[in-house]
Amino acid sequence: MEKPTLPKGTRDFGPLVMARRQYLFNTIGQVFHKFGFLPLQTPAMENLSTLTGKYGEEGDQLLFKILNSGDYLKDVDLSKLEARNSRLVASEIAEKGLRYDLTVPFARYVVMNRHEIALPFKRYQIQPVWRADRPQKGRYREFYQCDADVVGTDSLICEAEIVLMIKEVFQKLRLNDFTLKINHRSVLDGLAEIVNAGGKEADLYVAIDKLDKIGEEKVREGLIQKGFESKSLDALFEILNTKGSNEQKLNLLSNKFQQSEVGKKGVSDLKETLGYLKFLNANEQHVEVDIPLARGLSYYTGCIFEVKVNNVQMGSVSGGGRYDNLTQAFGSKEKLSGVGISFGIDRIYDCLDELNLFPKETATSSKVLVCHFDEASLQYGLNTLSQLRSAGIASEIYPDLAKFKKQVEYADKKKIPFVIIIGPEEVASGQLSLKNLESGEQSKQTIQQIIQALTP
Amino acid sequence: MEKPTLPKGTRDFGPLVMARRQYLFNTIGQVFHKFGFLPLQTPAMENLSTLTGKYGEEGDQLLFKILNSGDYLKDVDLSKLEARNSRLVASEIAEKGLRYDLTVPFARYVVMNRHEIALPFKRYQIQPVWRADRPQKGRYREFYQCDADVVGTDSLICEAEIVLMIKEVFQKLRLNDFTLKINHRSVLDGLAEIVNAGGKEADLYVAIDKLDKIGEEKVREGLIQKGFESKSLDALFEILNTKGSNEQKLNLLSNKFQQSEVGKKGVSDLKETLGYLKFLNANEQHVEVDIPLARGLSYYTGCIFEVKVNNVQMGSVSGGGRYDNLTQAFGSKEKLSGVGISFGIDRIYDCLDELNLFPKETATSSKVLVCHFDEASLQYGLNTLSQLRSAGIASEIYPDLAKFKKQVEYADKKKIPFVIIIGPEEVASGQLSLKNLESGEQSKQTIQQIIQALTP
Repeated sequence: MEKPTLPKGTRDFGPLVMARRQYLFNTIGQVFHKFGFLPLQTPAMENLSTLTGKYGEEGDQLLFKILNSGDYLKDVDLSKLEARNSRLVASEIAEKGLRYDLTVPFARYVVMNRHEIALPFKRYQIQPVWRADRPQKGRYREFYQCDADVVGTDSLICEAEIVLMIKEVFQKLRLNDFTLKINHRSVLDGLAEIVNAGGKEADLYVAIDKLDKIGEEKVREGLIQKGFESKSLDALFEILNTKGSNEQKLNLLSNKFQQSEVGKKGVSDLKETLGYLKFLNANEQHVEVDIPLARGLSYYTGCIFEVKVNNVQMGSVSGGGRYDNLTQAFGSKEKLSGVGISFGIDRIYDCLDELNLFPKETATSSKVLVCHFDEASLQYGLNTLSQLRSAGIASEIYPDLAKFKKQVEYADKKKIPFVIIIGPEEVASGQLSLKNLESGEQSKQTIQQIIQALTP
Repeated sequence: MEKPTLPKGTRDFGPLVMARRQYLFNTIGQVFHKFGFLPLQTPAMENLSTLTGKYGEEGDQLLFKILNSGDYLKDVDLSKLEARNSRLVASEIAEKGLRYDLTVPFARYVVMNRHEIALPFKRYQIQPVWRADRPQKGRYREFYQCDADVVGTDSLICEAEIVLMIKEVFQKLRLNDFTLKINHRSVLDGLAEIVNAGGKEADLYVAIDKLDKIGEEKVREGLIQKGFESKSLDALFEILNTKGSNEQKLNLLSNKFQQSEVGKKGVSDLKETLGYLKFLNANEQHVEVDIPLARGLSYYTGCIFEVKVNNVQMGSVSGGGRYDNLTQAFGSKEKLSGVGISFGIDRIYDCLDELNLFPKETATSSKVLVCHFDEASLQYGLNTLSQLRSAGIASEIYPDLAKFKKQVEYADKKKIPFVIIIGPEEVASGQLSLKNLESGEQSKQTIQQIIQALTP
């Protein structure tokens, strides 16, 4: 029999990685909770009618579809089968698909539970999603998303709170060197007016979003190819290249947007958002108005956020913004505006790993392994074990009679930091040997002393 | 557009239920951790070659299969399509399936990572599984399993530790009235010798496992129909009907098994397991040797466990036992014996709900909502909010200017227990009104006093 394998693009998370992921999820979840966000979980499977058409044509291609149960081919049109028309047949043999993101299921939940929900509704959701993408480094077919959204209010206090939440998450994770970029859809729309983009806004936004990566020259070339006038681009890049404080940037924009109502709205929203930070006793540290920032522009209608960890080779680790009409795709007539943030768990994990920022404790399993030499010391060790656990100390005993070396190897492999060594002498005296496996330090202590030493 | 629906047999978990489920998972996870078990997560999708043939024919039918991506029909044999042979076509158009339980992925993980794993390997896993079963009350197509296993040792200390772990979980959940039934495959095999079951062991075990539910008469009828002799059944029921302490039951079995080597082995294993409890400073409270207990007999080869919550209409809430050859199904020649326990999360949830045992705190979201009357008090409230959060108090502010009544309704609906009311008077004096929404009690306090009052 062949050795089993994992489906490509999927991963097992073994104990060490899991402990770290749990630390990550717990840290983020606790911050969400402190800000009044409550957890939601939706099923892995959704009806394809819920998912299809929400992610564009490309997204639809990447949905994992679940074969109907039972005799699923029974009623399928024979001509479609004979034509081997995969697309048409799929719609008849698969009614369900796997969750592709957390936003659509969230919208579906809101529509289905509209009457029980208190608005503004603040939910967070940490669950895996599945995409039939071509797997490559850092891109998986199963990966976790971690979203927090508040819907049902236009208040920019929510934007300010999301800024604070992001700052607190990264500070709690000790990722202190990060930049939270913020922009506004209406600022982009104001820029579009300045360059007379009329009808070519999407091209403009896609192009300038790359400014950071490919530089002015290439962006300019691309825009000229798309039919933008060189002269209007000069005005554009003067704005895009503005350096300085957030206040300076916003003042420049105000100045440039004197003729643009939409541009003014963007600037005033950003000013109001940053103003709320002050009322919330927070400052603008880490926060940077980034005029070329566009992100999923077709989606966002207000503020746009993106987080970069500095001095690490890594794309954005978090992003979000305000959107209108969360539930419109489900035929709801109510205009539910919301603002949300999504943390890229895999990338944040990699940053913490690279910068060696996972707390040491996270890596450990039990605190102590009870080792023994014979039947009598094993029995004595069981009593020791029960006392350790009564004191709340995660601990274990090697369950078989085995050589001491083997027992210590087990502790090493599991990264258990301490062993208690019990032999005939220890049984007789009650003075147990406690050994720190990292430092090699060893001393004789009573179980009460050991408990005191190991209690955090 | 039609209102969206959930696939049948699946559920959303809204904030209240999620908070309770997290309490449940955290409680169980903490106990697992204290006993040296480490978390593992495997992907939702497994290759069908990993899953098929592991759950019997019926299980194979219940696997959710995932349609291959792209032009999946391209190379399918036309004759199979024309014959509309769902089964044969499925094997060509679906390579992957959804996880059906946690044991097979665990075994697959062990085989794939055998060389990095420290034996004995103690893992726990809390993840959803999917079964294309007909949904009915209490039976879902997506549900969580919660398993802990230790593999790679025959030591009965592991059985004793699992008994302790079960006791601690239920005690932590304040489900104090439960019975942990324990039996042994070899005890059943000993009984089979007594009734000369030769070849009909499975019939015997299935029948006596129902003794509790349908009574002696019906079990006897069934066994006679299967060809068992009435006389030998008298001897059997004399044993099965034994009442008394565990010691009395085991002594009776010892007596009856004088001619049965296998029976003796079962009794001695049970005695040894209970003996380890003593060494571990634990007693046999809640633990009951249950001679007719059989459970998935084809699977278990040693001790068998089952937990019933008493005085609640509910099947078993937890079960497990020792098995041999975890990895045999994957062609591994190494005999890896293990022992595990699985907690039925949905049933335990229902028990806690019925008995009103969820901690009140679990149900709440934020601790306090900051309410305001006008722009100035909203701004003041943002400062208040930041102080509450700095003190670690989960709190929120109503983000829009709205009538006080609406703000309190929001708090009510979200089960936020306290509101802080800030109007012009409070802004002037710094004496804020703190109101307990449950008791109606209200008093004026400074923010420092409020923080002190709300800090747990």
